[in-house]
Amino acid sequence: MTDAAPVPPTSLPAEFPTSIDPPARLLMGPGPISAYPSVLRAMSAPLVGQYDPFMTATMTETQELYRAVWATGNEATLLVDGTSRAGIEAAIFSLVRPGDRVLVPVFGRFGHLLAEIAERALAEVHTIETDWGQVFAPSVIEEAIVRVRPTLLALVQGDTSTTMNQPLEDIGEICRRHGVLFYTDATASLGGNAFEADAWGLDAATAGLQKCLGGPSGSAPITLSPRAVEVIRSRTKVEAGIREPGDASSPDFVRSNYFDLGQILDYWGPRRLNHHTEATSMLYAARECARVLLLEGRDAVIARHALAGRAMLAGVEALGLAVFGDVAHKMSNVVAVEIPDGVPGDAARAVLLEDFGIEIGTSFGPLHGRVWRIGTMGYNARKDAVLTTLAALEAVLRRFGAPVPAGGGVEAAADVFAAGAAARAVPAPEGP
Amino acid sequence: MTDAAPVPPTSLPAEFPTSIDPPARLLMGPGPISAYPSVLRAMSAPLVGQYDPFMTATMTETQELYRAVWATGNEATLLVDGTSRAGIEAAIFSLVRPGDRVLVPVFGRFGHLLAEIAERALAEVHTIETDWGQVFAPSVIEEAIVRVRPTLLALVQGDTSTTMNQPLEDIGEICRRHGVLFYTDATASLGGNAFEADAWGLDAATAGLQKCLGGPSGSAPITLSPRAVEVIRSRTKVEAGIREPGDASSPDFVRSNYFDLGQILDYWGPRRLNHHTEATSMLYAARECARVLLLEGRDAVIARHALAGRAMLAGVEALGLAVFGDVAHKMSNVVAVEIPDGVPGDAARAVLLEDFGIEIGTSFGPLHGRVWRIGTMGYNARKDAVLTTLAALEAVLRRFGAPVPAGGGVEAAADVFAAGAAARAVPAPEGP
Repeated sequence: MTDAAPVPPTSLPAEFPTSIDPPARLLMGPGPISAYPSVLRAMSAPLVGQYDPFMTATMTETQELYRAVWATGNEATLLVDGTSRAGIEAAIFSLVRPGDRVLVPVFGRFGHLLAEIAERALAEVHTIETDWGQVFAPSVIEEAIVRVRPTLLALVQGDTSTTMNQPLEDIGEICRRHGVLFYTDATASLGGNAFEADAWGLDAATAGLQKCLGGPSGSAPITLSPRAVEVIRSRTKVEAGIREPGDASSPDFVRSNYFDLGQILDYWGPRRLNHHTEATSMLYAARECARVLLLEGRDAVIARHALAGRAMLAGVEALGLAVFGDVAHKMSNVVAVEIPDGVPGDAARAVLLEDFGIEIGTSFGPLHGRVWRIGTMGYNARKDAVLTTLAALEAVLRRFGAPVPAGGGVEAAADVFAAGAAARAVPAPEGP
Repeated sequence: MTDAAPVPPTSLPAEFPTSIDPPARLLMGPGPISAYPSVLRAMSAPLVGQYDPFMTATMTETQELYRAVWATGNEATLLVDGTSRAGIEAAIFSLVRPGDRVLVPVFGRFGHLLAEIAERALAEVHTIETDWGQVFAPSVIEEAIVRVRPTLLALVQGDTSTTMNQPLEDIGEICRRHGVLFYTDATASLGGNAFEADAWGLDAATAGLQKCLGGPSGSAPITLSPRAVEVIRSRTKVEAGIREPGDASSPDFVRSNYFDLGQILDYWGPRRLNHHTEATSMLYAARECARVLLLEGRDAVIARHALAGRAMLAGVEALGLAVFGDVAHKMSNVVAVEIPDGVPGDAARAVLLEDFGIEIGTSFGPLHGRVWRIGTMGYNARKDAVLTTLAALEAVLRRFGAPVPAGGGVEAAADVFAAGAAARAVPAPEGP
């Protein structure tokens, strides 16, 4: 073995790759979507060292920005270095001990994912399910809590697989009453729909950048209540190699090093205890996502998503497309439309992508081949993005023989934007 | 709780943050180091959708590039979306079942980390240790394998905590002879020192971008032999929500969803089964790191690191600094020097950072306060970076009262570079 010639056994690609040069794309699917240009620019900023005063100040500043995004006073507000799924796993693995009961109300694919991850944590997982396209009444969740008596309720807020937005306002109080920790996955909803971590009584919430926050996948914002931090701290394990006298380790340690939020908190906190090497460019991206959101204003961004979502909804309906699910409980940033009879869903999406550079989404599980999902989120929750998408969609539907009213979708959406602009233009009551 | 006012409980920072604008830094520590400018530029490229033909082609192309970087024909060559530590956890959690015996030879902090992560995977962990600053003879590792009879040998290649580079050439054959899987953590060494995944008989190897590959932390290249893939495939669990008829699940599943390499392989492979949403910008970065390395040439890059490392070594010795550890087994890309008596290590590093914009590294564990670590890696394995660092270090040492020969460090290093250039300038033998 050791006398093998030290040359790579695989040759280079015949045409050596050039620097990355992606095609122009308007990403109007359920995410990832086109990032804010300033977020892309932030990632090309030079690196600094892991303990550079600028680095630690940037981490602290990013925590402060995300407290405002989450609407929380939680000290434990930080980033997990991975995709949104990494944030979910960090929350569940750190909060749930093997054998703990976890209740997951499932109203789409991502509820199944929470259950799956809790299974990997060796929890005793209980699910309740509702039809795809619906959400749960708080009373149904409370009944299940009373029956299951879980340690943790894990509940998706916005499930892109069905476009539904589960109301959370009353769930925290129910959990508190029954002594249950309340975790939500807000990946698809945060920044485009109301979210109030403290007012709603959340103990843990996680997200990703690639939806309404308008960044790339790869960093997972997370916030943890003092109650959640207490559970995590009770499971402390300081790793050999950096352990110091007085550092106790619990036998009940988190079954992951990378996702042990206790260690990650020590790295983000004043102790700055080395754990991973913070992903600097993704930190820059996450910071910029929060910064542009707060610069525009949290309420203003949510209102912009609501307006773009209403316009897209009016547009697809005016094109004659049936909307899937309970529209009253739809996330503002994505709509699912039934693919018209006779139109091959994937072929039509391919034409939209190849001829117009516009991406809309396919679907998972029971909805696969039945609906398309169209997003209006982050940077792309904009009038021009909505109208362009509707114009192109009309053209593609016509090419595949679907009966579509000429210009109807664009006009209906433009009317919604015009009404929105008029509403904003109402003069304020005159002052003294 | 629900009648709380829907406004963020924390206010925005008094001075609202501007777009990110890091200070100028020459990062000459043990990593992260200053990224190649083209890698920073690659990250500002626009996003595309998760299943865009350009995206899947870029993933495939990146796999091909990393096969050349690792010197392997392994089909299972891909990225884990997280820092280098995420790659380690994915390898160990996917290859090790609870109760399996794992042998970790520890020659620095990162050996302790491998042991720690194997403990989290509930393995029966056995370690052997050598003094910091030394490496293991293959016979010592073989004796321990015979005694412990592990499922997996987990061995760091380059441990930045001590700067040592463990020879791996003979270890794969030993592992094969005893039926042991062979994993190495090449985070600190890959790209700056010889690495031959196939010729050395590796079953799994992981790395990060932030060392010799010259990128930001946040993506972990990994390669897996067919033997490793077989172990991983025997533990398949397809998650509910995307499970299809015929998808069996093993009761012996990996105790992580995010790090289940079986699922990650299905996402990177022809099945393209949805798992996480690939971190697009970090994919672009990882691709560019491999591209610039292969464009310069793998052997040329390793030779450049060797030359810069020899120059820095000559420079610090000429400044009168004692070098820590077994220099014959040092990684080419980092050197540890003893802090001279009377010089306050952290204060001197702070002056180097604040007055010269140059970062060198502190140390962990038994070496903390005793040595500095100075890196020459990736983009910064360059003559100007080495000479500038030595000139600034000389000035700082003098300011703190250490006796240093004027210009000695710079001259000694410049001589090494001149000799390197002369060696390269030897004319080739004349052809016919």
